[in-house]
Amino acid sequence: MRTSRYFLPTLREASNEAETVSHQLMLRAGLIRKQASGIYTYLPLGYKILKKVENIIRDEMDESGCLEILGPAIQPAELWHESQRWNEFGDEMFRLKDRHDRDFCLGPTHEEIFTDIVRNNLKSYKNLPMTLYQVQTKYRDERRPRFGVMRSREFIMKDGYSFDLSEDGLDSSYQIMFNAYKRILERLDLKYQIVDADSGNMGGSHSHEFMVISEVGEDDIIYCSNCGYSANIEKAISQTMGSQSEKNTKDLKEVVTPDVSSIDDVASFLEVELGNIVKSMVYVAHGKTYVVLVKGNHQINEVKLKKILNTTDLEPADGLQIKAINSELGFTGPIYLQGATIICDKEVEKMKNFVVGGNKKDTHLINCNIGRDFTPNITADIRSVNEGELCASCNSPLSKSKGIEVGHIFKLGNKYSKNLKATVLNKEGKEVPLLMGCYGIGVNRLLAAVIEQNHDENGIIWPKALAPFQVSIIPVNTKKEEQNKLAEDLYSKLKIKYDVMLDDRKERVGVKFKDHELIGVPVQIVVGKNALENKVEIKYRDNKEKSLIDVEEVVETLDNYF
Amino acid sequence: MRTSRYFLPTLREASNEAETVSHQLMLRAGLIRKQASGIYTYLPLGYKILKKVENIIRDEMDESGCLEILGPAIQPAELWHESQRWNEFGDEMFRLKDRHDRDFCLGPTHEEIFTDIVRNNLKSYKNLPMTLYQVQTKYRDERRPRFGVMRSREFIMKDGYSFDLSEDGLDSSYQIMFNAYKRILERLDLKYQIVDADSGNMGGSHSHEFMVISEVGEDDIIYCSNCGYSANIEKAISQTMGSQSEKNTKDLKEVVTPDVSSIDDVASFLEVELGNIVKSMVYVAHGKTYVVLVKGNHQINEVKLKKILNTTDLEPADGLQIKAINSELGFTGPIYLQGATIICDKEVEKMKNFVVGGNKKDTHLINCNIGRDFTPNITADIRSVNEGELCASCNSPLSKSKGIEVGHIFKLGNKYSKNLKATVLNKEGKEVPLLMGCYGIGVNRLLAAVIEQNHDENGIIWPKALAPFQVSIIPVNTKKEEQNKLAEDLYSKLKIKYDVMLDDRKERVGVKFKDHELIGVPVQIVVGKNALENKVEIKYRDNKEKSLIDVEEVVETLDNYF
Repeated sequence: MRTSRYFLPTLREASNEAETVSHQLMLRAGLIRKQASGIYTYLPLGYKILKKVENIIRDEMDESGCLEILGPAIQPAELWHESQRWNEFGDEMFRLKDRHDRDFCLGPTHEEIFTDIVRNNLKSYKNLPMTLYQVQTKYRDERRPRFGVMRSREFIMKDGYSFDLSEDGLDSSYQIMFNAYKRILERLDLKYQIVDADSGNMGGSHSHEFMVISEVGEDDIIYCSNCGYSANIEKAISQTMGSQSEKNTKDLKEVVTPDVSSIDDVASFLEVELGNIVKSMVYVAHGKTYVVLVKGNHQINEVKLKKILNTTDLEPADGLQIKAINSELGFTGPIYLQGATIICDKEVEKMKNFVVGGNKKDTHLINCNIGRDFTPNITADIRSVNEGELCASCNSPLSKSKGIEVGHIFKLGNKYSKNLKATVLNKEGKEVPLLMGCYGIGVNRLLAAVIEQNHDENGIIWPKALAPFQVSIIPVNTKKEEQNKLAEDLYSKLKIKYDVMLDDRKERVGVKFKDHELIGVPVQIVVGKNALENKVEIKYRDNKEKSLIDVEEVVETLDNYF
Repeated sequence: MRTSRYFLPTLREASNEAETVSHQLMLRAGLIRKQASGIYTYLPLGYKILKKVENIIRDEMDESGCLEILGPAIQPAELWHESQRWNEFGDEMFRLKDRHDRDFCLGPTHEEIFTDIVRNNLKSYKNLPMTLYQVQTKYRDERRPRFGVMRSREFIMKDGYSFDLSEDGLDSSYQIMFNAYKRILERLDLKYQIVDADSGNMGGSHSHEFMVISEVGEDDIIYCSNCGYSANIEKAISQTMGSQSEKNTKDLKEVVTPDVSSIDDVASFLEVELGNIVKSMVYVAHGKTYVVLVKGNHQINEVKLKKILNTTDLEPADGLQIKAINSELGFTGPIYLQGATIICDKEVEKMKNFVVGGNKKDTHLINCNIGRDFTPNITADIRSVNEGELCASCNSPLSKSKGIEVGHIFKLGNKYSKNLKATVLNKEGKEVPLLMGCYGIGVNRLLAAVIEQNHDENGIIWPKALAPFQVSIIPVNTKKEEQNKLAEDLYSKLKIKYDVMLDDRKERVGVKFKDHELIGVPVQIVVGKNALENKVEIKYRDNKEKSLIDVEEVVETLDNYF
């Protein structure tokens, strides 16, 4: 490819909107352009790389015996009513009507379509196990699209769905995908961690996330360096803590705490540790009000809470809703409530003589005790693990890091096959529901994650498998005939074997160097004044090494590198 | 691939809904399944072939120096307001709102997006000419989706857009695409015709359609076998006909024609030729009423009419609208009208003493004459050419056939660049609007068109470039060890070089034969009782020839065929 015939609108600066390095570099290197919030066009360079990611994924899927199909992006509402997810999905789902006023959505995911295809076309256990997949555009109307293609509203996913007759079969199909995902991330040279994860509104019993380690990741990972335990903070557990040493219960007492409502203010006003206070947060779900209690130095984990309440729809209560349960905004506690369900974290259960809100303005209660002063309706693990707590398996201190979720796999079991009546005849001729797994990996997000892990101050450093071009040939002074000729000769010779870009633009050489560093071509061949002696400079993007070599040595040098 | 591990839900019968052969065969061979009206899932076999079509197109685009990008399917309304097409597109456009109530559409086409990308990123004439393309899903809410993927609501198109500085540049970019489209159709072994076409709501000065000849085509093509003239009937012209022999005008006379309102009834009641009657049709566009006159044996061409009225929005008038111009449904004529614009076909201009409607119930007028009895507001070519009329270029009789429009290319000129202000600095540093061309080819529709031209009573006969598998190996009796072994050996050997399917299913061999004929694998290798003598039968799908050959000869035989 000649740069003069390519479309490479590089930028010296990215817009202020781009908060992450990958977003900045994708704009600057001319990979993408924004069309609307969370909606992008891929320019030639970006799309070329995106297709490479796609093909690595496709290759590993085919290698694993999966079959590629293509479902529609527009999906009829009827299927989503059958799975009972039409309402569950809320604002994140793009909905539309056709000219006959029929309801459709733009698929945020494809469980319904794949289950429908299989229920209508697969009749016998003899066809099992079967895993179907597609590389298809997904639509999610994110509340806050950000970080470029990392969290966008129109994006490409590889999603796959396995169908099995038995739990063992499902386990094995799941494991095949688990291994395939590992191979994909390894081929992309990514540093990643596989974590236990919550299944969210996909449902099912078991799920793993594939997390690319990165400071800009939106997920927190808790992991144990000793035994290898690793989980999304949404799901992570730790060793149960010891009980409080205090033995005797003291008398409940009301204290006036004027204008003191934050947990830190309460601690310093009353001169107690955070660990002696119980925070009470008020939530509303499906019209019911919940008061949720965790220890002062712990954080409520809304994912765990939603799971316990079996809902995806949980909102903090407002002042009126708090009044309605006989409480006061900023001073909620578990005593004297009316009409609220009290949910208590397991760690609170062990506390004695603790501080709680008094349910009226400027008031707290001290020496509160469970059983004597109030009784929780539910006690469960509803908090997030902190770094430094001890691993539940091996007692070593837990660590925390941030990760970009690039893949997520789920054992769905019969959730969809039951609702959509996807059954098959087993060996005995009996109709049984299929057991399903679902497997998603984000194509665009992988691309951004690779950039987060592979860049320097000059631009992107592509792993060899993704480099848009393998070699750039850059004549230094296009007015010098011998440089142009040598560059052209090299181009004709190298392009037979390598994907080469010849920068034939009439630009200053500094501009060219900057562009090729920015877009991350692994090897640059600079044709300068040494062309007279048939020598060129070869520069490597990754280690920044350069050396002057004979033109005759170029092919061998490249063969050794690639 | 082993058939037992493949997903091949073939059907003996297609549903009654499938009116065309390609639709029936795509269902029966397990290529597609319907999810909703005009919305399909591609099963593994179908998607495998679709990707082959896609890659042939991509290959020819890249070969022509075009650059692939990927625009979004969701497009912001603002861009369509800029191009003034938001309202123009009507019900055919799927529209939706996001969670912030902003308007979007699902792109029925991508002129706006590509023009936007170029206006924001291409600044100098030095980057010209440039042709960008994508293979992207398009959405059109068709009034009547039909013929399976031939006219569907979600479909894949390759659409490309060229950008030039001069008319000469545009001509040359257009010609490059014209040639690339020819190569694509030739690689798919299609019989096709390239016709002059109307630009419809894409706008622009010049356009060609690529028509695959087929009885199920929705377009009529008028062509001249002598000089090669060829045009869509929407645009086709013919030699002007001679004037009527009658010399003298006779007196206008009212005749009572009770219950006679169809043109044929009028002719037989009054005992005149159709060619002596003038049909008057009433249309409404943007609130104005038009009475349109053509000769009794001619057909009004609404495409030509829309072009003359410069509208895309033309509807037949209803009874009330007809009353409002002082006329009567079924008896409209050009005389005594009030508030209607009269549009007259060129061929009517030459008629004398003709019959017209009397604008009141059960009444016609005879001996009507233009000039004396009424004066048209507009006279133009607004009728469709009939087979047998004479070619405007060479005077030979014209023929007519039906075609499936698979490709359409347009010279858009500055229509979009002007509205969207897509300019570039020319050599003199002056800002000038870009000249654009647009080039579309339907990926799914090509696949269906190939089937329309390549099938027999047993199923599909794929051209080699599209065959989903090149060779099938079919053991006749899977209970015979020697047959299985020979089939497996052949499979191991052949799959290194060819895309082979081994039908290892425990099915009756008749079922297997039927399936492989239906899905159109070019070569079947049947391993039967001759396996004992190391012989197999080789069968060709296209010419139905078969012969018994030595196992050692198989590779050479295949090498010769492919």
